[in-house]
Amino acid sequence: MAAFTLKCTACAASHDADVRTLECWSCQSPLVVDYSAHDFEVGSAATPRRTGPLPVPRPDDAVSLGEGGTPMVELKAVADSLGLDVVRGKLEYINPTGSFKDRGTAVMISVAREQRVTEVVEDSSGNAGASVAAYAARAGMKAHIFAPSTAPEAKLRQIRAYGAEVHAIEGPREATTAAAVSFYKERDLVYASHVLSPFFLEGTKSFAYELAEDLSGNLPGHIVFPVGTGSLFLGAWIGFAELKEAGRIASIPKLHCAQAEGVMPIVAAFEGREAPPVSTTVAGGIAVASPARLQQIIEVLQQGGGAAVSVSDSDILGWQTILSKTEGIYGEPTSAAAFAGLQELMARGVIRPSDSVVVPVTGFGLKDVPAD
Amino acid sequence: MAAFTLKCTACAASHDADVRTLECWSCQSPLVVDYSAHDFEVGSAATPRRTGPLPVPRPDDAVSLGEGGTPMVELKAVADSLGLDVVRGKLEYINPTGSFKDRGTAVMISVAREQRVTEVVEDSSGNAGASVAAYAARAGMKAHIFAPSTAPEAKLRQIRAYGAEVHAIEGPREATTAAAVSFYKERDLVYASHVLSPFFLEGTKSFAYELAEDLSGNLPGHIVFPVGTGSLFLGAWIGFAELKEAGRIASIPKLHCAQAEGVMPIVAAFEGREAPPVSTTVAGGIAVASPARLQQIIEVLQQGGGAAVSVSDSDILGWQTILSKTEGIYGEPTSAAAFAGLQELMARGVIRPSDSVVVPVTGFGLKDVPAD
Repeated sequence: MAAFTLKCTACAASHDADVRTLECWSCQSPLVVDYSAHDFEVGSAATPRRTGPLPVPRPDDAVSLGEGGTPMVELKAVADSLGLDVVRGKLEYINPTGSFKDRGTAVMISVAREQRVTEVVEDSSGNAGASVAAYAARAGMKAHIFAPSTAPEAKLRQIRAYGAEVHAIEGPREATTAAAVSFYKERDLVYASHVLSPFFLEGTKSFAYELAEDLSGNLPGHIVFPVGTGSLFLGAWIGFAELKEAGRIASIPKLHCAQAEGVMPIVAAFEGREAPPVSTTVAGGIAVASPARLQQIIEVLQQGGGAAVSVSDSDILGWQTILSKTEGIYGEPTSAAAFAGLQELMARGVIRPSDSVVVPVTGFGLKDVPAD
Repeated sequence: MAAFTLKCTACAASHDADVRTLECWSCQSPLVVDYSAHDFEVGSAATPRRTGPLPVPRPDDAVSLGEGGTPMVELKAVADSLGLDVVRGKLEYINPTGSFKDRGTAVMISVAREQRVTEVVEDSSGNAGASVAAYAARAGMKAHIFAPSTAPEAKLRQIRAYGAEVHAIEGPREATTAAAVSFYKERDLVYASHVLSPFFLEGTKSFAYELAEDLSGNLPGHIVFPVGTGSLFLGAWIGFAELKEAGRIASIPKLHCAQAEGVMPIVAAFEGREAPPVSTTVAGGIAVASPARLQQIIEVLQQGGGAAVSVSDSDILGWQTILSKTEGIYGEPTSAAAFAGLQELMARGVIRPSDSVVVPVTGFGLKDVPAD
């Protein structure tokens, strides 16, 4: 079908690159795109320098709103307050729908259009839903977005503005996913899942390529991500691994996960203990109790020497305020969780004052309005 | 004080480049930055290709959030529905605070910081206020933002998030300006006015430079702007004029103004008649009854062969929906006014089907939420 296949993250079984194939037929684990058996040379001069190899055979036909190319800015006030030499923010909220999700959606929807998909289903706490709704509209596809009925009103309005049908689901986040899965199976539609789609990760990996370009290969020692489903964290890892294989970078920065205390399955798994009962958090974008790619995230942490830490809601809101009032950066609470995580990693001695750090600011504060 | 001066737009009198000087001492007309008497060569290789000459002597010390560098995307659905060959959107809402204003604010606040300003006053219907609040926060300045009490709540929240003091003023838009002017004069503060500051226009001119770069000098025949105070329209003209003088472009695209029927002083002046009484409009960003740079705008229209047209609220809302549902672009109503203007310019035969057109999408729909 195309010059690449899908590979199981657990048993390495190979699958055709069909946009409907979301898990291994053999062991039901998540998949990633695999270029290794094909002509595509990851390190060749023909590879786009700011995205890496892409599973979109006809880039001219890609569905794009100019995603990526986000600013990288120094955060001097943050660095001073933490006693760090250099902290940089990569402003991922400056994307076409206001979050990093657009990187992944652009590639996922481009592949779907090439495969003649006309109607998609997605479930999301808000940002991915808005992103899929926008790119589906641009591609001329009908979109059904399943979202928790508790998602911020600004996000739901945005999804509706793009013409998508919003299915608001009561109950925990898992109920939203279950409803979306039933719906797409019943109607034989395509599940454009930002969590399961291997093409989505192919889009988010441009984060790593841009970092290497922005900093002329002078990569930071550490990157701290707010992690729910891990779609930016895992995409970044894939990108860095490709860059290393291609000889464009010498080593991969340590990639760390920040989660909210209320919903911390990755932190628990990383520490080898059972996840505590889920409670609430202001960081809705990372409130994911059972990440489908949990095992893959843990493997990346272990292979790469990263850590997973949890942070309190009061620290998250405190960092949201510091960012907006001292740096002029209005991120949503989910984004601020990564800065609270950076502080915790310093307290533990994992990140030291002389280290250089990058933190993505993943979503726009306009989308998830805090209480005054 | 610096390698440039300020020049009166009416009598050409020259003034020192002080951030406090906002009108001609002799004839009270607005000012622009003038590099002509100085070493700065507009067309030299040392001039930044994507911004042109800047009135910021120490660029490393500039206050920046990575503004500009916005995507340029083809709008095929819009072009098809209008029967045009090519329409491109320059997605100006993909800026650090969600509007094109950041281009101007970055330069204005950088100059203010170089001149050791610590407290600024601005009045705005919302977008400029959020932008000044953000960059002032980043520069460590206190900001007072005067806004109409009817400004969208999302914009006022955003301004407060950056730590600025919001002064909500009852009555027409002019009352907000009057209150801001009294306040800065009484307290001897600096008026960081996006309308009057010549430095603000020096920032927005990068729009023209980027267009020339993005399209490799293959400029469109027409650009349609939503115009209230004219800060993007005038900045673009200044940029194109510099590019032409430097020999980097052969001719300047025709720059057109779109206004809402409810508030159309520029259209009336362009047509040589008295402005009709002001009523309401959904396009809050261009609801400016008495633009301080009206004369300058009319001169640009006359010199450049552009036109000014008014559009109805229903057409504005209709285009907002077309943009979001067919292109995946969620602009605020003010942005949609330019597309309604484009349609009107086609109906009049000013823009023909074979012409190429660019329209800036100036503000994010998240900031000015339409009624469901």
